[in-house]
Amino acid sequence: MGAATLFLWLQKSEVAARYRTALIVSSLVTAIATYHYVRIYESFDKAYALSNGIVAATGHPFNDAYRYVDWLLTVPLLLVELILVMNLSAKETTSKSVKLGSLAALMVILGYPGEISSDPTTRWILWGLSMIPFLVILFDLFVSLKTSIETQPENVKGLVKLARTIVVVTWSFYPIVFVLPMIGLTGGTAQVAVQIGYTIADLLAKAAFGVFIYIIAAKKSESIQAAH
Amino acid sequence: MGAATLFLWLQKSEVAARYRTALIVSSLVTAIATYHYVRIYESFDKAYALSNGIVAATGHPFNDAYRYVDWLLTVPLLLVELILVMNLSAKETTSKSVKLGSLAALMVILGYPGEISSDPTTRWILWGLSMIPFLVILFDLFVSLKTSIETQPENVKGLVKLARTIVVVTWSFYPIVFVLPMIGLTGGTAQVAVQIGYTIADLLAKAAFGVFIYIIAAKKSESIQAAH
Repeated sequence: MGAATLFLWLQKSEVAARYRTALIVSSLVTAIATYHYVRIYESFDKAYALSNGIVAATGHPFNDAYRYVDWLLTVPLLLVELILVMNLSAKETTSKSVKLGSLAALMVILGYPGEISSDPTTRWILWGLSMIPFLVILFDLFVSLKTSIETQPENVKGLVKLARTIVVVTWSFYPIVFVLPMIGLTGGTAQVAVQIGYTIADLLAKAAFGVFIYIIAAKKSESIQAAH
Repeated sequence: MGAATLFLWLQKSEVAARYRTALIVSSLVTAIATYHYVRIYESFDKAYALSNGIVAATGHPFNDAYRYVDWLLTVPLLLVELILVMNLSAKETTSKSVKLGSLAALMVILGYPGEISSDPTTRWILWGLSMIPFLVILFDLFVSLKTSIETQPENVKGLVKLARTIVVVTWSFYPIVFVLPMIGLTGGTAQVAVQIGYTIADLLAKAAFGVFIYIIAAKKSESIQAAH
């Protein structure tokens, strides 16, 4: 996450001015994630200790709130990042960002009480509620942004479509990881599987996606230069 | 590692735009290594303590995973760095980066279970498996990149060849260091020899190599300026 942040900061001046905000927003996502992963690392390190070859709980509870606060900030920004690279009108950029950003925040807020609950029924109910804004976002990305994608320059149309697909695929990891403790995984295995699952999903959705946004910006910058 | 990172950041704007990504990738390699060396330092410091003139284990296990996670990220990037400075076509740059980067990641992943094993047979088997992608990478660097090297401008042809040789020589350190505990070194001596060996290899393969990539980029920038 830190390396992706540095990459985006260093590449910022190498793309055309109009795409720099997309890179800046991408770098905020990975910078915020870097901070929270340090907190998660420290919390995990304090919560479990290795003694005689066995990892055991120390009594300090592991705090899942860092992850959800991270998502509350970064998930709306990820959508803004995607919208910014699409070159919509200023008005549409703002309205789409506010609409999709709010839905993303709602999705994260609904997920948290489920995540910290050990009751499967509570987890399923909140998972279901959280899926509503999730599906509305996906619907919006596929239906109402279709026109905007069709008007993208030829050399990046495929990339912008791919960026949207990456969002859909990487975001689908989260609701799957969330249900792992409800479908048979228990105790330490469930805890570790959930943490590793979310971490892989975060790396793809934030760091890899950020680099991808840079590739689109660099390609679009080339076509601007070529036009001059 | 930190100083090499700063050097590459500060020199970035002094080379021609087309070589900046090579410098940026080099700086990520040393930045990621800087982070992991801080973690390795802290882990080592916690694992051993000096008491009455004797260094003894404290009971906290030294965590070799920091080094392998570092390599998992930096070794593919090092190959990307070398490929970027060769000025291949965009298509060839991507395909070579993906191919060699994946082989490098596979090499590191195969090495780790061997590194943390104290059984010499297990170590030899995983060393052998890890050598397969290693040799494929070397073969690729020497055979299929030959044409690209021959088409380099005259004033940098020697430098690009040298960069490739540096990769081969510095990378050869790692499998040698890996076998030290299997050929007679034991206990604390083996542990210290392995850590010092890897550290020297890392400094050459990352920091010194990064500065070398800058030298090539600077030379190539000169010939672009001369051409205008």
